Amino acid sequence: MRTQVAIIGGGPSGLLLSQLLNRAGIATVVLERKSRDYVLSRIRAGVLEWGLVGLLREAGAAARMDAEGHPHDGTNIADHGRMQRIDFKALIGKQVMVYGQTEITCDLYDAQDAIGATVLNEAEDVALHDVTSSAPYVTFTHQGVPQRLDCDVIAGCDGFHGVSRPTIPAEVRKTFEKVYPFGWLGILSRTPPVSDELIYARSERGFALASMRNPMLSRYYVQVPLTDQVEDWSDDAFWAEFRARMPAEVAARLVTGPSIEKSIAPLRSFVSEPMRWGRLFLCGDASHIVPPTGAKGLNLAASDVHYLFEALTAFFRRGDETALDHYSSRALARIWQAMRFSWQMTMLLHNFPDQTDWDHRMQGAELDQLFTNPAAQRLMAENYTGLPY
Amino acid sequence: MRTQVAIIGGGPSGLLLSQLLNRAGIATVVLERKSRDYVLSRIRAGVLEWGLVGLLREAGAAARMDAEGHPHDGTNIADHGRMQRIDFKALIGKQVMVYGQTEITCDLYDAQDAIGATVLNEAEDVALHDVTSSAPYVTFTHQGVPQRLDCDVIAGCDGFHGVSRPTIPAEVRKTFEKVYPFGWLGILSRTPPVSDELIYARSERGFALASMRNPMLSRYYVQVPLTDQVEDWSDDAFWAEFRARMPAEVAARLVTGPSIEKSIAPLRSFVSEPMRWGRLFLCGDASHIVPPTGAKGLNLAASDVHYLFEALTAFFRRGDETALDHYSSRALARIWQAMRFSWQMTMLLHNFPDQTDWDHRMQGAELDQLFTNPAAQRLMAENYTGLPY
Repeated sequence: MRTQVAIIGGGPSGLLLSQLLNRAGIATVVLERKSRDYVLSRIRAGVLEWGLVGLLREAGAAARMDAEGHPHDGTNIADHGRMQRIDFKALIGKQVMVYGQTEITCDLYDAQDAIGATVLNEAEDVALHDVTSSAPYVTFTHQGVPQRLDCDVIAGCDGFHGVSRPTIPAEVRKTFEKVYPFGWLGILSRTPPVSDELIYARSERGFALASMRNPMLSRYYVQVPLTDQVEDWSDDAFWAEFRARMPAEVAARLVTGPSIEKSIAPLRSFVSEPMRWGRLFLCGDASHIVPPTGAKGLNLAASDVHYLFEALTAFFRRGDETALDHYSSRALARIWQAMRFSWQMTMLLHNFPDQTDWDHRMQGAELDQLFTNPAAQRLMAENYTGLPY
Repeated sequence: MRTQVAIIGGGPSGLLLSQLLNRAGIATVVLERKSRDYVLSRIRAGVLEWGLVGLLREAGAAARMDAEGHPHDGTNIADHGRMQRIDFKALIGKQVMVYGQTEITCDLYDAQDAIGATVLNEAEDVALHDVTSSAPYVTFTHQGVPQRLDCDVIAGCDGFHGVSRPTIPAEVRKTFEKVYPFGWLGILSRTPPVSDELIYARSERGFALASMRNPMLSRYYVQVPLTDQVEDWSDDAFWAEFRARMPAEVAARLVTGPSIEKSIAPLRSFVSEPMRWGRLFLCGDASHIVPPTGAKGLNLAASDVHYLFEALTAFFRRGDETALDHYSSRALARIWQAMRFSWQMTMLLHNFPDQTDWDHRMQGAELDQLFTNPAAQRLMAENYTGLPY
């Protein structure tokens, strides 16, 4: 088999890149280790920066998002009962789009199918070869048959646990990591969301987030110790804890119901540099992980896709390698800003086991500034809605 | 002896309060443990917010500052060689005034003398009594003679080590503290400052600050381990280290000379709440300490003096205790914002012994934002030039 761009990973970033490249006349093959059903069952982020909205439109995969997604003009920060809206629209004229990652993945699979792109699910034993040459190739097994895929470029969109990043020699990679001493217990529930917009809440009992996927699908979280197990938390226990962490007027209007999904995710910040090794280019979680605070994960994958798509277009159309040479540094510049933002939001809103009275007051003082200072709100709005590509 | 307001401490905050009160027709006595010569020999801050400039003018003690002080329209932040000016004037139309605290103290002593105010230096064994009654009094020894000073109100302006704060029962006081694992080695030198405006510099070797008192008096600092002693640092060693931490083009134009003062100060953030106990009101360092990063120490004392002066005027003129009742919370609201700001600037620009690669990158990412984002610069300018009273 031969293609121009071998894309490792059939999650949203791999599919989006494939879709954009195909529409630009550049051939791709997407290799995904899991089944399509499995990929489509994963519950992930749901807040899209407008840059990602634009990319989905450019990819011709935005029709359902534009019909069913919910543009949000702001978000809410609560702190021990008080609450402040950060009005993106009024502050900087921008919005975010609430639309589940699961739906995006579904739309992208449909779009890939519609243009006849090659997406091979359940591709096993994927290995990358000769990536520092001009003729890299990928080997894998599909439906029991060993295969070889020759290509010009490999895009590593296969997430944190994928094979792409480890293909870069360990002595070349520099990693940066921050592990937070808690997780998020999240539930999905077929109930009307307690608020039209997200509520990020700091409380004495710890952080909580009220989010949503659509008008009848709520997504709620509470910060929990890393030692907690999902089985420790009945639905009733979750609702009681969530209610206790929200401002009283929010808690009062909460509609509860059975959870249809419940899971605990650890929080981590992680970056691996560089994002390019020869003809291998990493995108998204393959290269970096953010904590969910601030909803940057999928949006960062999208900005990587944007930069890589631009660079690949220049390369295949004009033989111009300049943008490919700058891909890693361009992508990383934006990634580090989102790293900073999601780290700061995490540090600002959570309880930490070793937190002193001083640290608590600094969180409070930072929130006081955010609640009252237009420049601080503007900075938050700019970072939350997404820095320019 | 009897007065209306007994002021404990004859540093700049006590003298400024005394001067303002006297001019408003309210009687004061200032008790200072040290000699006037000693007080005037202390080298302290030199960057005044405009609020303090206004208070000095209101106090009739601003003539020399207005003639000899240097208004600054901005300040500079350097990071591993790159440098960015934060243009206060352009961003928010504000300035700061560079004028040494020593000069302010001198001007205030002169102003107090000129209006015949009572300032008793070398007042020993000061003790505060019956501060929760409406008839508090102060005992002390002056020139060998035990004295009693009856008053309506006591202002505790006697610094971190003074007697005022411990007069508030320990079980009432709540303290917040952050100790930083380094100090500032500072020198004063009769050389032309290397820059017209301050330069706060982060470097691989640690933090450095280029400051000044006037066109022929430079004040420079380098971050040093707490284990260092002044004797460990020759002038030559200081200059070499300072030069190595500044951007090359700054280092190239540095004029060195013998130090006329050299000292190491530890860095600490400290707040004691409440600031009022009965008829005792704390001002400045008696209640709170900031690290020197951001130059907030004297400016915070000034904002305390502003709030207390307003409250005392209402009390003595109209018998209105409302502002006195709100003094502690009003002063603290502003103090906590300056605490946050000086803590953030300290965390942003120094090397920390236990700092990880992640932490380094977060400092760099925060500085990237500050160097490029107008909202971030505006926030810095607002905090640096001083939040409104």
